[in-house]
Amino acid sequence: MTKSEKYALGVDIGGTNIKIGIVSDSGKLIKSLSVKTQAEGGPKKVISNICKGIDEILEKNKLKIQGIGVGCPGVVQIKKGIVENAPNLPGWKNVKLGPILKNRYGYKIHIENDANAAAIGELIFGAGKKFDSFVMVTLGTGVGGGIVFNKKIFRGEYGAAGEIGHISIDINGPKCNCGSTGCIEAYVGNSYLREIVRGELPDHPDSKIWELIENDLSKVSPKIIQLAAEKKDAYAKFVIERMGKQLGAAMASLSNLLDISTFIIGGGVAGFGKPLFDSIRKTIAARVLLPLRQRVLVIPAKLKNEAGIKGASSLVFYNN
Amino acid sequence: MTKSEKYALGVDIGGTNIKIGIVSDSGKLIKSLSVKTQAEGGPKKVISNICKGIDEILEKNKLKIQGIGVGCPGVVQIKKGIVENAPNLPGWKNVKLGPILKNRYGYKIHIENDANAAAIGELIFGAGKKFDSFVMVTLGTGVGGGIVFNKKIFRGEYGAAGEIGHISIDINGPKCNCGSTGCIEAYVGNSYLREIVRGELPDHPDSKIWELIENDLSKVSPKIIQLAAEKKDAYAKFVIERMGKQLGAAMASLSNLLDISTFIIGGGVAGFGKPLFDSIRKTIAARVLLPLRQRVLVIPAKLKNEAGIKGASSLVFYNN
Repeated sequence: MTKSEKYALGVDIGGTNIKIGIVSDSGKLIKSLSVKTQAEGGPKKVISNICKGIDEILEKNKLKIQGIGVGCPGVVQIKKGIVENAPNLPGWKNVKLGPILKNRYGYKIHIENDANAAAIGELIFGAGKKFDSFVMVTLGTGVGGGIVFNKKIFRGEYGAAGEIGHISIDINGPKCNCGSTGCIEAYVGNSYLREIVRGELPDHPDSKIWELIENDLSKVSPKIIQLAAEKKDAYAKFVIERMGKQLGAAMASLSNLLDISTFIIGGGVAGFGKPLFDSIRKTIAARVLLPLRQRVLVIPAKLKNEAGIKGASSLVFYNN
Repeated sequence: MTKSEKYALGVDIGGTNIKIGIVSDSGKLIKSLSVKTQAEGGPKKVISNICKGIDEILEKNKLKIQGIGVGCPGVVQIKKGIVENAPNLPGWKNVKLGPILKNRYGYKIHIENDANAAAIGELIFGAGKKFDSFVMVTLGTGVGGGIVFNKKIFRGEYGAAGEIGHISIDINGPKCNCGSTGCIEAYVGNSYLREIVRGELPDHPDSKIWELIENDLSKVSPKIIQLAAEKKDAYAKFVIERMGKQLGAAMASLSNLLDISTFIIGGGVAGFGKPLFDSIRKTIAARVLLPLRQRVLVIPAKLKNEAGIKGASSLVFYNN
């Protein structure tokens, strides 16, 4: 830790927990803590919890903080620091989170949609440092995305761009919660994936997944699928390879449209590792237009478990 | 024609014909002519034809030309005026068309991919004038696209962005010439559409299309389908509505990804008019994410038959 280092405070608002930490401009996590979100208590309760956490982390802090970065689910008006809406946080409509925090702490506040914050985190601290343009794909409960073009987030007209999870790969595909069909999220989003595997397992009585879940279908999870694949279970390997094909198809459409061919993949499901990545790569290369074929690059995110806090903190060091 | 008007010379290089014209900065076509491309003769022959056409149109011209704009199929390095490659023009690899024309005529030369030129044409002269951001979709032999974001073309990393025709709407869909499957072009591109209708017509013996083609399947064309639909032929109407659903699905994915919700549709097939546009609109509205749903706008292009020359000319008035 050299004297010239700068520090940011990052707040990652999740549906269950809020993670708060101090991160250096070289991307080192100095300290962190987690508080319950208590989303059901509405914006007031959540903001009170955020402040409790910030107060605690600032107590006894001697590092000079440059600002506070906040990663938040939903649509954010970044200039005003207003959370327009956040589907997973009940009651959040046009919440002036930025002004409230600014008023209380005096620091400059940077609020950003969490998927964009994850992309900026990789851009500033992670696997995206050496690229001008890439697409960040976060494979979790949903499939999140952030488009980085010439070192900047591409936001679209109203700040909602990057919804990679809702590229449809099959006009007649399965129903997605968004109302459309065949969205990539409806195949590889955690809860969809669980449902699909639960439905298919009875046709694979020899799968090692049965043993791992102790014959209890409610225990099916991405982690279990990964474990089974590592034990060379044919069905688990098939599931992962199929996910790669589905993701690859969506990414190929995206590359053709945007002429961006570097993809950084993070989130829990990225833990499937090489079999997933190889399947994605092979599929994109087979589907993308000829001039793009040589350029396709699919690499894992670097920030892993600290992606939330580091993404939020990175907003302070990001030259918007 | 007021004294203060400015003029540009536009060159639209097509696979069969090169169209050349003088256009005012208010978008008026002052004069124009067409010469054969003779693409099979290679770049030298094509360039010689371009120059013959330009010479002819400049002969006796008394208007002050601000520059020459060129719309060209394929990938263009716009800064250097080099045509990197043009799949439909044999032998075109890194052709220094810009420098050649600059050297011969002295004017400033603006070269652009033809789909982007069409988008810029609508932005400067047409239906896009009042929008900051929109996507231009040209429905012709292929399905071309140009993304306008904040009044500028979004080019991606290497200038190839905008390939809307190669958004796949079905991972298991029909084979596209690009090597992928289910690309929107493989459903609604002219030659694909012809093939699909030829294959389906025998199942629709009562369709009015049979009469219009005098029972000769080789005569199937978008124009014939349109005529049949205007005569209230059920199958022709079904074909057009299905195209709208297919295009709408691709556009919904695009809107979710880019948060751009204005679409300007041009090209011959856009002549299907209201039934096609209504089907596109309905489909996008049903598939796009909730916050975008209210904003979706699908409107016809304005430049119609003069889109090529006017798009090329508009490059001269476009502040790149």
